Amino acid sequence: MPDNAPLTDLAAELPDGMVVTDPDILAGYRQDRALDPDAGTPLALVRPSTTAQVQTIIRWCASHGIKVVTRGAGTSLSGGSTAVDGALVLSTERMRDLSVDTATRTATVQPGLLNTEVKAAAVAHGLWYPPDPSSFEICSIGGNVATNAGGLCCVKYGVTVDYVLGLEVVLADGRAIRVGGRQIKDSAGLPLTKLFVGSEGVLGIITEITLRLLPAQPPACTVVGVFPSVTEAGRAVLAVTDQIRPAMLEFMDAVAVNAVEDMMTMGLPREAAALLIAQSDAPGPAGAEEVALIQAAFEAHGATECFSTDDPAEGEAFTAARRAAIPAVERLGSLLLEDVGVPLPALPDLIDGVAEIAATQDVTISVIAHAGDGNTHPLIAYDPTDAAQHDRAQAAFGQIMDLAISLGGTITGEHGVGRLKKAWLPDQVGPDVMQVTAAIKAALDPDGLLNPGVLL
Amino acid sequence: MPDNAPLTDLAAELPDGMVVTDPDILAGYRQDRALDPDAGTPLALVRPSTTAQVQTIIRWCASHGIKVVTRGAGTSLSGGSTAVDGALVLSTERMRDLSVDTATRTATVQPGLLNTEVKAAAVAHGLWYPPDPSSFEICSIGGNVATNAGGLCCVKYGVTVDYVLGLEVVLADGRAIRVGGRQIKDSAGLPLTKLFVGSEGVLGIITEITLRLLPAQPPACTVVGVFPSVTEAGRAVLAVTDQIRPAMLEFMDAVAVNAVEDMMTMGLPREAAALLIAQSDAPGPAGAEEVALIQAAFEAHGATECFSTDDPAEGEAFTAARRAAIPAVERLGSLLLEDVGVPLPALPDLIDGVAEIAATQDVTISVIAHAGDGNTHPLIAYDPTDAAQHDRAQAAFGQIMDLAISLGGTITGEHGVGRLKKAWLPDQVGPDVMQVTAAIKAALDPDGLLNPGVLL
Ligand SMILES: Cc1cc2nc3c(=O)[nH]c(=O)nc-3n(C[C@H](O)[C@H](O)[C@H](O)COP(=O)(O)OP(=O)(O)OC[C@H]3O[C@@H](n4cnc5c(N)ncnc54)[C@H](O)[C@@H]3O)c2cc1C
Ligand SMILES: Cc1cc2nc3c(=O)[nH]c(=O)nc-3n(C[C@H](O)[C@H](O)[C@H](O)COP(=O)(O)OP(=O)(O)OC[C@H]3O[C@@H](n4cnc5c(N)ncnc54)[C@H](O)[C@@H]3O)c2cc1C
Repeated sequence: MPDNAPLTDLAAELPDGMVVTDPDILAGYRQDRALDPDAGTPLALVRPSTTAQVQTIIRWCASHGIKVVTRGAGTSLSGGSTAVDGALVLSTERMRDLSVDTATRTATVQPGLLNTEVKAAAVAHGLWYPPDPSSFEICSIGGNVATNAGGLCCVKYGVTVDYVLGLEVVLADGRAIRVGGRQIKDSAGLPLTKLFVGSEGVLGIITEITLRLLPAQPPACTVVGVFPSVTEAGRAVLAVTDQIRPAMLEFMDAVAVNAVEDMMTMGLPREAAALLIAQSDAPGPAGAEEVALIQAAFEAHGATECFSTDDPAEGEAFTAARRAAIPAVERLGSLLLEDVGVPLPALPDLIDGVAEIAATQDVTISVIAHAGDGNTHPLIAYDPTDAAQHDRAQAAFGQIMDLAISLGGTITGEHGVGRLKKAWLPDQVGPDVMQVTAAIKAALDPDGLLNPGVLL
Repeated sequence: MPDNAPLTDLAAELPDGMVVTDPDILAGYRQDRALDPDAGTPLALVRPSTTAQVQTIIRWCASHGIKVVTRGAGTSLSGGSTAVDGALVLSTERMRDLSVDTATRTATVQPGLLNTEVKAAAVAHGLWYPPDPSSFEICSIGGNVATNAGGLCCVKYGVTVDYVLGLEVVLADGRAIRVGGRQIKDSAGLPLTKLFVGSEGVLGIITEITLRLLPAQPPACTVVGVFPSVTEAGRAVLAVTDQIRPAMLEFMDAVAVNAVEDMMTMGLPREAAALLIAQSDAPGPAGAEEVALIQAAFEAHGATECFSTDDPAEGEAFTAARRAAIPAVERLGSLLLEDVGVPLPALPDLIDGVAEIAATQDVTISVIAHAGDGNTHPLIAYDPTDAAQHDRAQAAFGQIMDLAISLGGTITGEHGVGRLKKAWLPDQVGPDVMQVTAAIKAALDPDGLLNPGVLL
């Protein structure tokens, strides 16, 4: 611990019990959902509830050279909120204020609320907060903003950044700034709001968020297609997106379908090579037209079964099945979770390429995808007790990112680089972009206190 | 000229005639559309056509400490492309390459193309590039990206940043970087693409842009409402946006209506206090519902006439009238052009407040607005030969920005801060945000070579 930092001094400046050093509690804050076995042990856990307390903590860190890992709900799949030896973990879990302003159609929230709580607050006012990561019931809105989270409806409704109008951010020197506001359009100064969204906590700690809300989503109709070939399912995706912007367009391969069916027994077609789940929320006859178009596209690409429903409960059951895919596949082994994305026409090539890598490395790779925007999650399941298999899984992990880069794509469509994909970032963006990234980091956090090891 | 910079050396490195010092030609590159009488005289004009040439120019600038003003089509209304004494003007007018990729539904363009040329190229492939600033026939796509331009359809379809997937940027030291790509979702690294869009040329020179295109816009129906009161027209805007997201919702006051009618004689209602022009492009019966809803909202707020048409030519005539407002009002005097925006519910207060300022300062202020997103353009028309009136106009210019800030809004919704609104930026964002802005500028352009005097 540099400087023999007097943790008791910090504790004295904060309400009783806010600084935690109990090893049993700390243990629960070491890993995030990526379950990195090399996670560090935090110096302490702090759970502020106000911006002023965050500032106190950061000022203390700055004056003692102690680094800090910001943690929302810890559902990161890229090691973004993994603890670092000797650093504080600042958890936002107690930052839970919320207000909805129907006049401006905005919600102003603290970062520790869960996405689902923000959604519910909007619904209570007849409004809608669209971004819906599959983890919406367990991830924080602050984590969503820090990673620019995507989700299922973002093929039509965009990602988190499209809904962030304003932010309060505590900088590495403890100052709190406000950027943006409640107006829809704002060109005043550098686009700092957009810079902070998706910056993975390396430029500042987000302490308040003003979100744009929409009128309630119109009811959606769900279409499910059962495919005998993953490649053809990929082509069916393009046949749909070439013509319309569906409200959802998700992909699950056979491994995922069977893993979910094993876990939830809901009658999914175990024999399918792939399942596509689409939604249209266009109103009235336009919706009926979209549904017909989706079905035609599915059938033209060999769907053996095509099923549509406008019963919301039935539609939600399929969506829930898709959302359950990660935990379900996790029951097959330890997971390495990919988040590679490609320009849409390259989707079939990506899917085929992943299958080849699985064959070559002789590991199980299940592919699920937010297919409508070209963002896939190959899930590499391996036996952690088998060292050789672990190495082959690691090799596959890198090869899949290399493949995405070679197809003109990205190593991460929505989960962020975190700590686990950092080694591949320079391959995607090149040394000059890395240098610009480092220059901006140095401008805002010269001592590298915030989220050490993430991105850079 | 610092360092007695050998312009001939630069000329020698570039194709013949690319460096221009003829004073008659330079004169045409001093002012932009804000017509700042204090515009400087450039050292020289350079008109590169390739990224490599831009790099050559910037390396030469960097090694001689010569500053550079990047100029697209010079339609800036905030002095963003106004020349600076002793600095180069780098015009992108010869950077006109374009390709459309229908498979990824993207256009890759050099910055000097006009917005209308990009739109036309998309249309030729059955696609659509939505952003439509009123100046779309005369402004460059690079200028649009540098200012994050808005327009008429952005109330439903978003602003320029929502369509920029990737950029090539020449940095202040002459390196060219690529950020983003052709994939729709990309979370790899800091969101640099979004940082450059709207950065007004102070962080780098945009030399190539990859734009997302949409399927062709469905045909739109236009609704025009004639109001006896500007405040009620403002309330009618809220009555619409509370319920739906129209494809367009524009406002013109009596001064603008009459100025346009004087210029174009198209039968606009001269007696109106305000005109609202709305569009719905929802397909089929949903569109008819939206039109009925807009008409009902207009009538509930006292519209004396309400007219709807699905004839595209007729709709375009009204849109063209709205787009002609700035040049039309300009015939009444010299203009100071505002671009203030507020959270939507404050729109009627903003309109009333501007009227009060006009009365107090005894100057003509015409208000036109992208009303559906709370972004207004009060146009202060004054007689430049009357010194006292000029001073009162200047006072009104500042008071309107103060008013917008006091209503929780912004001094610029889409035109950018440029040189003319710089003095008000700290009032809106505060000293800490200014310091962060300066730190990022210093990280990317430590010698302040790019667009001196803009923003900072
Ligand atoms: C089953 C499952 C499904 C998932 N599906 C999706 C999906 O569909 N789409 C998607 O985008 N993601 C998905 N994820 C990943 C994850 O849920 C998201 O990345 C989410 O946004 C993380 O939120 P969190 O609160 O858990 O953040 P954490 O894991 O706590 O943190 C994530 C990153 O954000 C930083 N951070 C958190 N809060 C703040 C703050 N207030 N200020 C600054 N930095 C902060 C952290 O330091 C870290 O770098 C899924 C995860 C799981 C487990
Ligand atoms: C009649 C009229 C109506 C208008 N209506 C609208 C409207 O509805 N919405 C709207 O948003 N704007 C509007 N504008 C303003 C203006 O057209 C926009 O700001 C436009 O985006 C500027 O484009 P330009 O090519 O003329 O840029 P310029 O005026 O040449 O430059 C604008 C700024 O961008 C920088 N820049 C230009 N190109 C580059 C580049 N390649 N790299 C880096 N920096 C660059 C310049 O340095 C300058 O700071 C209107 C203007 C007029 C005259």
